[in-house]
Amino acid sequence: MTRAFSGIQPTGDIHIGNYFGAMQNYVKLGRQLGKQAIFCIVDYHAITIPHEPEALRRRSFEAALVNMAVGLDPEQVTLFVQSAVPEHTELAWIFMTQTPLGDLERMTQFKDKAKQHSVLSGLLTYPVLMAADILAYKADTIPVGEDQVQHIELTREIARRFNGRFGEIFPEPRAVHAKDALRVPGVDGQGKMSKSKGNTLGILEEVGEIWSKLRVAPTDPARLRRTDPGDPHRCLIFDYHRLFSDPALTAMVETECARAGIGCVDCKKFLMRGVERTLVPIQDRAAELRRQPDAVLTALETGAREARALARQTLEETREAIGLLRTVALD
Amino acid sequence: MTRAFSGIQPTGDIHIGNYFGAMQNYVKLGRQLGKQAIFCIVDYHAITIPHEPEALRRRSFEAALVNMAVGLDPEQVTLFVQSAVPEHTELAWIFMTQTPLGDLERMTQFKDKAKQHSVLSGLLTYPVLMAADILAYKADTIPVGEDQVQHIELTREIARRFNGRFGEIFPEPRAVHAKDALRVPGVDGQGKMSKSKGNTLGILEEVGEIWSKLRVAPTDPARLRRTDPGDPHRCLIFDYHRLFSDPALTAMVETECARAGIGCVDCKKFLMRGVERTLVPIQDRAAELRRQPDAVLTALETGAREARALARQTLEETREAIGLLRTVALD
Ligand code: SF4
Ligand code: SF4
Repeated sequence: MTRAFSGIQPTGDIHIGNYFGAMQNYVKLGRQLGKQAIFCIVDYHAITIPHEPEALRRRSFEAALVNMAVGLDPEQVTLFVQSAVPEHTELAWIFMTQTPLGDLERMTQFKDKAKQHSVLSGLLTYPVLMAADILAYKADTIPVGEDQVQHIELTREIARRFNGRFGEIFPEPRAVHAKDALRVPGVDGQGKMSKSKGNTLGILEEVGEIWSKLRVAPTDPARLRRTDPGDPHRCLIFDYHRLFSDPALTAMVETECARAGIGCVDCKKFLMRGVERTLVPIQDRAAELRRQPDAVLTALETGAREARALARQTLEETREAIGLLRTVALD
Repeated sequence: MTRAFSGIQPTGDIHIGNYFGAMQNYVKLGRQLGKQAIFCIVDYHAITIPHEPEALRRRSFEAALVNMAVGLDPEQVTLFVQSAVPEHTELAWIFMTQTPLGDLERMTQFKDKAKQHSVLSGLLTYPVLMAADILAYKADTIPVGEDQVQHIELTREIARRFNGRFGEIFPEPRAVHAKDALRVPGVDGQGKMSKSKGNTLGILEEVGEIWSKLRVAPTDPARLRRTDPGDPHRCLIFDYHRLFSDPALTAMVETECARAGIGCVDCKKFLMRGVERTLVPIQDRAAELRRQPDAVLTALETGAREARALARQTLEETREAIGLLRTVALD
């Protein structure tokens, strides 16, 4: 692993499932790889489905802000907005000319969406932009969810085919799954936490608001009365303890729940300590960043320049390899 | 007509059919519109079909050289290579996200090619790049051949749809057919001059070579003997006179052929005067440019900077309109 690339969806609406899944992994990658950990807020992907301009602009900003608040340090890593580096779309065009149409048409995500409604062209060609995102930086390590694995495989094929035709330029990147990507349950107890189900705890949600959701959250259904022993492994509150609480408290809850030593309300109150300890500093940093939006924008601008320096070099090699006449110092 | 855009295929292999068709029209447009006549050597289109890198690079250079030799003055007009202005591919991506896939799939040119063999994705999406080429400059006048009219119609639709969704940014360009685009016959008398039929007279072809082709070219088949009167309107040599010779000579040939006053060999020799008068200066200029390739490249570089200044402004408006976060001074 020498260089990692992650696309970040432009959304500020981030819940603790995202936080304990992708985001903490990003922060770890950043510590390991520094500037070689490249994080790109993918606004040019976001427009492949109908969007509202002002909402997109706000969400791109929020995505930067929230990721910075949770610990992605733009001075340590490379963090930028995709549309600030036009080399992405340029390389996407080059790859498009080398990619059989059938390769795009057989992508599962595309087929699923094309089934539902008439689609826009960008939805078909989007995996080529994703390949360009990655290969513009010659990244070799791509942390992705299961649904993106096929697109990484296509990226590898695009790299392989290009290298075969025009000479070795691109490494074949590897998809990695975050080891500690946790399946965080929703606060309604109805499976995974997800925005579409409305069962989330937002990382920027006020602590009082989170408490009012936790207060009414279901616990082990077998525990009808305070004196009934519970099974913490059948309780989402215990899942949350494992994320938020220190090991000593977590162990105490596990023991005391099972012998009815604590009540569920107390247990939830204990949980709130860890929630506060985790989220309040993030929310404070977010508030601070929100007071200085120019600092966020400047960080993204610096990130874009750093990213561009890398992407530009790849594009120069690529243009040379495919036989474009060099007639401008692309500044 | 305030701004014209023409895509020039990267080929140096230009025959007198191209010259009396598109190229003279370009020169005229350049005289009328100056810098507002924008000529783009479309190398990013050329790679939508399999290509050899070194051949493409050479042909892009030749296309610039030949067009300059026939009279496109890079100081007067805007002349550049497409890949030197990355705003083209960036705007193409934006348009792709707004264009129904069905709109691209129903393009006649695409359907014809997709019937013959399995196609590359760029062949499907190429009309979107063409729309971006045009609309990046807000050009309103597009000189094109018949086969491109459908793509201009698509460009108009793309402009209309974008303006409707995000606000008025793009004019709807108009396809114009050069009034004097002539159907130049091939030297074999078998219909239109075309590279694929091998019946061309190249504008950079040596005069001696041209003579050896004309010498054996068919004339009015009814004129078996020198004493048979001919019908100049059934003779390609007379078509060539109308292109190359002055009106007095052309009128003389018309009269004398019809009363057997001149023989075909003499008639062809007369034609050679006009051919030499037209082509030798072009060939001399081409030879001079060939001795100073850096001057050609510098002219293209200057052209790219001029073009980019325009395209960049359009892209800034476009990015703002669709809601991209502005985080880099795209230099
Ligand atoms: S005590 Fe805690 S872990 Fe046990 S059922 Fe109640 S909330 Fe869940
Ligand atoms: S005299 Fe000239 S125009 Fe007449 S048939 Fe011969 S070549 Fe043709």
